Amino acid sequence: MISALTKARLIDIVSKENYDDSNAGRLVYSYDATPQFQSMPDAVIAPRNKTEISQIVKICNQFHIPLIPRGSGTNLCAGTCPTEGGIVLLFKHMNQILEIDEENLTITVQPGVITLDVIQAAAKIGLFYPPDPSSFAISTIGGNINENSGGLRGLKYGVTRDYVIALEIVLANGQIIRTGGKLAKDVAGYDLTRLFVGSEGTLGVITEATLKLIPAPQTKKTLLALYQDIDSAAQSVSNIISSKIIPATLEFLDQPTIQVIEDYTNIGLPIHAKAVLLIEQDGDAETVNRDIMKIEKICKQGHALSVETAQSEDEAEKLRNARRTALSALARLKPTTILEDATVPRSEIAKMVTAINSIAEKHQITICTFGHAGDGNLHPTCTTDLRNDEEMKRVELAFAEIFEKAVELGGTITGEHGVGAMKAPYLELKLGESGIAAMKAIKHAFDPNNVMNPGKIFAKEARKRLVMTR
Amino acid sequence: MISALTKARLIDIVSKENYDDSNAGRLVYSYDATPQFQSMPDAVIAPRNKTEISQIVKICNQFHIPLIPRGSGTNLCAGTCPTEGGIVLLFKHMNQILEIDEENLTITVQPGVITLDVIQAAAKIGLFYPPDPSSFAISTIGGNINENSGGLRGLKYGVTRDYVIALEIVLANGQIIRTGGKLAKDVAGYDLTRLFVGSEGTLGVITEATLKLIPAPQTKKTLLALYQDIDSAAQSVSNIISSKIIPATLEFLDQPTIQVIEDYTNIGLPIHAKAVLLIEQDGDAETVNRDIMKIEKICKQGHALSVETAQSEDEAEKLRNARRTALSALARLKPTTILEDATVPRSEIAKMVTAINSIAEKHQITICTFGHAGDGNLHPTCTTDLRNDEEMKRVELAFAEIFEKAVELGGTITGEHGVGAMKAPYLELKLGESGIAAMKAIKHAFDPNNVMNPGKIFAKEARKRLVMTR
Repeated sequence: MISALTKARLIDIVSKENYDDSNAGRLVYSYDATPQFQSMPDAVIAPRNKTEISQIVKICNQFHIPLIPRGSGTNLCAGTCPTEGGIVLLFKHMNQILEIDEENLTITVQPGVITLDVIQAAAKIGLFYPPDPSSFAISTIGGNINENSGGLRGLKYGVTRDYVIALEIVLANGQIIRTGGKLAKDVAGYDLTRLFVGSEGTLGVITEATLKLIPAPQTKKTLLALYQDIDSAAQSVSNIISSKIIPATLEFLDQPTIQVIEDYTNIGLPIHAKAVLLIEQDGDAETVNRDIMKIEKICKQGHALSVETAQSEDEAEKLRNARRTALSALARLKPTTILEDATVPRSEIAKMVTAINSIAEKHQITICTFGHAGDGNLHPTCTTDLRNDEEMKRVELAFAEIFEKAVELGGTITGEHGVGAMKAPYLELKLGESGIAAMKAIKHAFDPNNVMNPGKIFAKEARKRLVMTR
Repeated sequence: MISALTKARLIDIVSKENYDDSNAGRLVYSYDATPQFQSMPDAVIAPRNKTEISQIVKICNQFHIPLIPRGSGTNLCAGTCPTEGGIVLLFKHMNQILEIDEENLTITVQPGVITLDVIQAAAKIGLFYPPDPSSFAISTIGGNINENSGGLRGLKYGVTRDYVIALEIVLANGQIIRTGGKLAKDVAGYDLTRLFVGSEGTLGVITEATLKLIPAPQTKKTLLALYQDIDSAAQSVSNIISSKIIPATLEFLDQPTIQVIEDYTNIGLPIHAKAVLLIEQDGDAETVNRDIMKIEKICKQGHALSVETAQSEDEAEKLRNARRTALSALARLKPTTILEDATVPRSEIAKMVTAINSIAEKHQITICTFGHAGDGNLHPTCTTDLRNDEEMKRVELAFAEIFEKAVELGGTITGEHGVGAMKAPYLELKLGESGIAAMKAIKHAFDPNNVMNPGKIFAKEARKRLVMTR
């Protein structure tokens, strides 16, 4: 609850038009892209700069009001759902690209900038910002940093973390710090920059970031390999990497996923194949040609039904876009779509996909699987119906088993989506009690009053999904 | 002080031959590669496994005995000098390569493994571990991880942090945790792996690490560009990067450095040039040839006196080795050599080198400068004499000004050497009071009794070098 006096102080900071506690206004920010989670905030605020954020944070800290920084809300872990009420903090006034530095290969941005705008601003001058979460056309950089977003190019180029080199942060005590710099090397104390990347808004509010850019690859080529069984596809993934080729993209889609994408896009995808690999290499022309030829050979030797290279960039772009629409396509099947991202060492992909299928069968639910095979980051996706309590219970059980299996195979409960409220109950599977205690010690050190996005990462009770409403 | 009872308990854990509190034994570990710092430990211990380390840590925590994990002691920040006494922890029994996983491209090692052994083990199977601190022939991986070591290949390939994907850690409370995994993507909670990389032994004891390997580049080429002035050399560095080429190595050496290296190695280095760039590119043959040709052209257009490509791998290796001997060569000049690593955005290198020279002149001291120009990581190195109190005061003043200038130019007080005891007094320059407070909060959360390598990173008083003896 926000008192009239506190409300007046907040309005005093951001001005009237940037504070909204109407029912309609709050309802819009009561959920994000994650199914099963909805909870009303007490207010929504849109500050114009870090000084205002610092003042807001101090008030939240004083009155123990939860503060939930939110980009476009595209996350899939209920990371921006205000599960404990409080104030949702928007960055709509802090959405500028502040600088592109061609000499130091950096771009400095405010958190509200759209990811695709960063990618395009870099591309315009021959530079490359690789992280490309599927939601990049609408997600914000601030959200990407807080969730350490991945994407289709993670195998070769890494994830958001690998490109964040400096941050400006408002801490829970209202102090503003700057970490890192336009520096390839910096070991002045603990790596606060990387600690904040992926911290899901639980340690402070990121108000500015400097991102590393790299020279854009000259060219790229895309191929599609079809398989009659999942094992052969997984084996090809292993064989490609073992042959010392790191493709820019190495995506896996199972038959049900291909089917729904084709129904959605109608671009002539091979709906008869049991598994498809979408493989892309970029770089200098000679390297790309050589790698693609080697990959073709490996796939054919690995019992691919067919291997086809896209004949034009237009055709390649269609394939990439088709892959990116997987979630939207699957979402058409049933009222509720739960997309997970259990991740395993790439050597364990075949085992993991097989396990997912048998778990789905055991619990009689529908799971389609696709994902970033090159980095073992799978997206088992369940199409279901939230209103069917009995089925939802089976879905819960199935996902719990999937997470357990991933960890058993040396993997993790989340590769790129974050923990949020959704996977908090499973975190102990991966970290154990001591690991969680170590992380909680950090949380407590930075945010003793638990006002920064509370209820995220750390579960109140273990091993059960939290579905809260307020 | 370690009581007789505590000593008996420690011996009970590691057995008699692995505990040494003799004068001779302690003297050996009273200093590391950093001049000006020496301090006797109370004992030296060499555990055989993580369980023993956990037991030792618990005792240290109980009796507030400082514990100083130490690799080969090659660090240059007094990071392993037992400035507050206590127990130096050696990894001589924990020096095994545990596994190389060719499918997941990882190597799993104990902390005591020599860096070069990791590089060579990877190379044997066509893989590449890029971090190459100049001390790599004797430094340990544990030391590299604790200091987040850089090296000559940092520009293109990053530093140690970019290759550590999983850790086993004994925390200050004796609990053993595992972070990360053989995973390209993992966002299950805070990034403890990267928090521990570069934490200088102040948060816990690293007992095992899994490192990422990459396919080895097919080929490499090396060239030497000579300049009549520093500005032209620095301009060439900027022009190379702005032209979208990221060389594997891009080293800068000033005339005094070249002179002493040549005196030491006698390989015919160009002692008449005011500045030299040692540039290396690796990758596929076509790419390397094209990049090297472009680089040659850029250097010539940038008023290089001459640009010569090494005609054989043998000749290239001689140049690389010559660069690596810089510290040893400089160390012959005078009794004391202080090598620093002020780092700036690469666009500021010319300004920084000019500033270093004028600061040296102002304080009438000798500073040679060399370093990793591509990443702005310079090594201004002062040859002096510790016994000359008056000169040492001027050296102190000069380095304080150098650090201030680096920070003023958007840089940092240390790019790859770490803070340790040596640069602790300057950390506030980079981080400000709030930044240090944030880091201290982490330290306190993990190590409330301050037993893990105390006196490192955080200074007791700011802005003055700590020279402690015990």
